[in-house]
Amino acid sequence: MNLETDLNHFMQICQARVESALDHRLPAADRMPERLHQAMRYSVLEGGKRLRPLLTYASGQAVGVASETLDGPACAVEFIHVYSLIHDDLPAMDDDDLRRGKPTCHIAYDEATAILAGDALQALAFHVLAHDPSIAVPAVNRLAMIETLATAAGSLGMVGGQAIDLESVGKALDLPSLENMHIRKTGALIRASVKLAALANPSLERETADKLDHYAKCIGLAFQIQDDVLDEESDTQTLGKTQGKDKNNNKPTYPALLGLAQAKQKARELHEEALASLSGFGEEAEVLRALSLFIIERRA
Amino acid sequence: MNLETDLNHFMQICQARVESALDHRLPAADRMPERLHQAMRYSVLEGGKRLRPLLTYASGQAVGVASETLDGPACAVEFIHVYSLIHDDLPAMDDDDLRRGKPTCHIAYDEATAILAGDALQALAFHVLAHDPSIAVPAVNRLAMIETLATAAGSLGMVGGQAIDLESVGKALDLPSLENMHIRKTGALIRASVKLAALANPSLERETADKLDHYAKCIGLAFQIQDDVLDEESDTQTLGKTQGKDKNNNKPTYPALLGLAQAKQKARELHEEALASLSGFGEEAEVLRALSLFIIERRA
Repeated sequence: MNLETDLNHFMQICQARVESALDHRLPAADRMPERLHQAMRYSVLEGGKRLRPLLTYASGQAVGVASETLDGPACAVEFIHVYSLIHDDLPAMDDDDLRRGKPTCHIAYDEATAILAGDALQALAFHVLAHDPSIAVPAVNRLAMIETLATAAGSLGMVGGQAIDLESVGKALDLPSLENMHIRKTGALIRASVKLAALANPSLERETADKLDHYAKCIGLAFQIQDDVLDEESDTQTLGKTQGKDKNNNKPTYPALLGLAQAKQKARELHEEALASLSGFGEEAEVLRALSLFIIERRA
Repeated sequence: MNLETDLNHFMQICQARVESALDHRLPAADRMPERLHQAMRYSVLEGGKRLRPLLTYASGQAVGVASETLDGPACAVEFIHVYSLIHDDLPAMDDDDLRRGKPTCHIAYDEATAILAGDALQALAFHVLAHDPSIAVPAVNRLAMIETLATAAGSLGMVGGQAIDLESVGKALDLPSLENMHIRKTGALIRASVKLAALANPSLERETADKLDHYAKCIGLAFQIQDDVLDEESDTQTLGKTQGKDKNNNKPTYPALLGLAQAKQKARELHEEALASLSGFGEEAEVLRALSLFIIERRA
């Protein structure tokens, strides 16, 4: 079997699937307030690799959950992810004007609209998990999904990581502190993307869920290391966002702390650890394995 | 019975109750990231009349739901309310530096921290509803609470109202448009405060729930009219926020559209309509009646 071809096929199918699911769940562009809804759609649609939704669908495949049930959770994590990008790009935060190869939300619209579009996307994420009829799971499992996403998105997860990130600009962070920041800033939501799929199978054994969770932890950190590596190595056009931004902002990065070669080595070790965590799974986890490899080999 | 004394007593008890419940549910000030958690606590604690929690507790009294079960919902609506104040006060939005008699979050901390504190409070609101063990209701009712709050907070509710508000600065809005904005901007969350209590009683009849909802709609609008009246009549010190702000910002207000006397008359009519909607209730709704009167008679 050809991992790469299979992954490409899976990615194309899921990306089309989630694009349509996102479109369907976003308020129409002509619905009042139009400008707000247009800004939400502008930031969400036609953008990104959809790594988090891909992880949700791929995890569902690994634990026997139908894609239909995962459209809602996949959209919810993506809404949270996109809202965090919109707010991170604001002048008071990272002050970036390019994202996914197009002007950031506050450039294309305005700052106030960008703040509100992010706020509304967060509310929408929880609305989808609470309400979406396509999520065919018992109410207690839905509640567990909402709790999982709220924890991952909040002050002990993603938002907390961003706060630590802002505080560390220009500071000499050691490796444990850098890791602690990334575990929250990007790791928490990546882990939630996998966990939402596990929660959609009410009869999943605890041990299996834990192994999936460990896989998710490993690839979350690997993802961030590769992000730092790309920020160092790639150019703005390939990246779709401003290259060298972190380095120029004096933000601590893995290559800065470990050296480039060692950072790459660490990402590869995390990939191996992720694979080991899936050793009890068979063919059904093949896409998860391929995604882990994809994460450390991607060029953008 | 003396409505005013009873209400004062109820307000004191509930305000102390919700203050402790909020404190208990906010991350500790020394928990990492400290600055973020301190900003969240700074904005939430020791502030405001707690009108929305009061409505939740008072509605619970009207439909036979224990206060213990409502601590979580009361905190959730207050977290959403406070996050919206933090974001509304930002320089890119209303640019205000005084709120509840103290410096706004971005003044006391900084803009980035204020954005993140608001974001984290929104996530916390949904976390509380999904997880809080003190909410003694079936899982499906919890889900209905989350859906209700997400709708009220999102682009078709509070955030949508704020977007319309920003778009209307300097524009000549007619009465229906002004009303439409306020129904979303403040009305939606006030309505949710009442509805969360109704949803905590799984055996509540639909008709009773509808009457409570109509009460909430009326007082929500009355609240906003009185807000506009106070913005016109009061001074900054009594108000605890910058007086005349809306008028000076060329924002449409009820007094500007209707004249001051007519605006006050409209608030009184809405109060009467709210009372009429509660006509089927007995003593158990006395605090709701008193709150409606309080809303149109308050001076801050």
